[in-house]
Amino acid sequence: MSAVTTADLLALDRAAQDLLFRAARTANTFTDEPVTDAQVAAIHDLIRYGPTAYNGQPLRVLLLRSAAARARLLPYVSSSNRAKTASAPLVAVLAADVDFHERLPELYPHRPQARDWLSDSPSRVEQARFSATLQIGYLLVGVRAAGLAAGPMAGFDAAGVTREFFPDGRHEALLLLNLGHPGPDAWERRLPRLSTEEVVRTL
Amino acid sequence: MSAVTTADLLALDRAAQDLLFRAARTANTFTDEPVTDAQVAAIHDLIRYGPTAYNGQPLRVLLLRSAAARARLLPYVSSSNRAKTASAPLVAVLAADVDFHERLPELYPHRPQARDWLSDSPSRVEQARFSATLQIGYLLVGVRAAGLAAGPMAGFDAAGVTREFFPDGRHEALLLLNLGHPGPDAWERRLPRLSTEEVVRTL
Repeated sequence: MSAVTTADLLALDRAAQDLLFRAARTANTFTDEPVTDAQVAAIHDLIRYGPTAYNGQPLRVLLLRSAAARARLLPYVSSSNRAKTASAPLVAVLAADVDFHERLPELYPHRPQARDWLSDSPSRVEQARFSATLQIGYLLVGVRAAGLAAGPMAGFDAAGVTREFFPDGRHEALLLLNLGHPGPDAWERRLPRLSTEEVVRTL
Repeated sequence: MSAVTTADLLALDRAAQDLLFRAARTANTFTDEPVTDAQVAAIHDLIRYGPTAYNGQPLRVLLLRSAAARARLLPYVSSSNRAKTASAPLVAVLAADVDFHERLPELYPHRPQARDWLSDSPSRVEQARFSATLQIGYLLVGVRAAGLAAGPMAGFDAAGVTREFFPDGRHEALLLLNLGHPGPDAWERRLPRLSTEEVVRTL
């Protein structure tokens, strides 16, 4: 009799568990194979159903496809991330729309006054950041759902990238993301993960 | 010939897409069927592989199982969320460990000095919040992977919950989460989602 593992308690099939989490890894190198706009649209069409506060959906994605756009990014990337950012087939700047509340009459129609509450709220920027970060979590899962490797990078000058790419003052850059198919020596060894006993407590 | 949809461009099978995103909804009512510790462990065993900065894994989960614990939470929950919080089979407080850096010598062993950089960094709390929020995104996907409905609630007094349940000053409450099987009239109608054209731009 084979042992029942925690994986057997999930409704999601084992292949999908592996694709999205267990076998998925942060890639450090990529092949030349492009990531198409159709793939990006397919990922977004999936993950846009993830929940956000007020259904506000503040995540905005800026794809840097041109060599000129990529060159504008590189000065803001930490030295340890520069080579992979230069060579990834696609780099995205993931940002929060801090004026997401302006869309709420359409996105949250049963309580349209939410726009006005948030308009005056000192916590609006923090709320934009929080929901956009949740959506980045969904997006990383979605990139993997597309069979692609994701390379999230927090090591960059976020204020500089915000100024460079979002001069309207309405957005805040949160994370850089390399997308592509894994190249040679793409993986570091798997780092240790905390156990459930270390993370979950019960009262 | 049937039309090719964006769903066909994904490696993840359609049933899994539906389970995690397309058919998944935020539940507002729940049946009495319990959510077991084994299910929570299965969810955590899956989502702990999601990436975080420095592999820091700052998310902490506090399950409120006892009636006494549930009663301590209710005063901090907004009036519109109180009934469902009182009736959900399981409620979790999702929090960030702002001292996550203390574990880095073990979790990020190839750069153990990261602990000391973060120890002195004014951005450490923000980094804890960011990575824990990413992990909440993975967790919401994981709850659905277990075949359960998730009810995330941002409408609560986060500072009050932090004081009440984390008096050590090392944690920050970020979100409340109801977990269970959907009950009668669990779903509001699906709210509109932004299109790819509204979210994704290319340079």
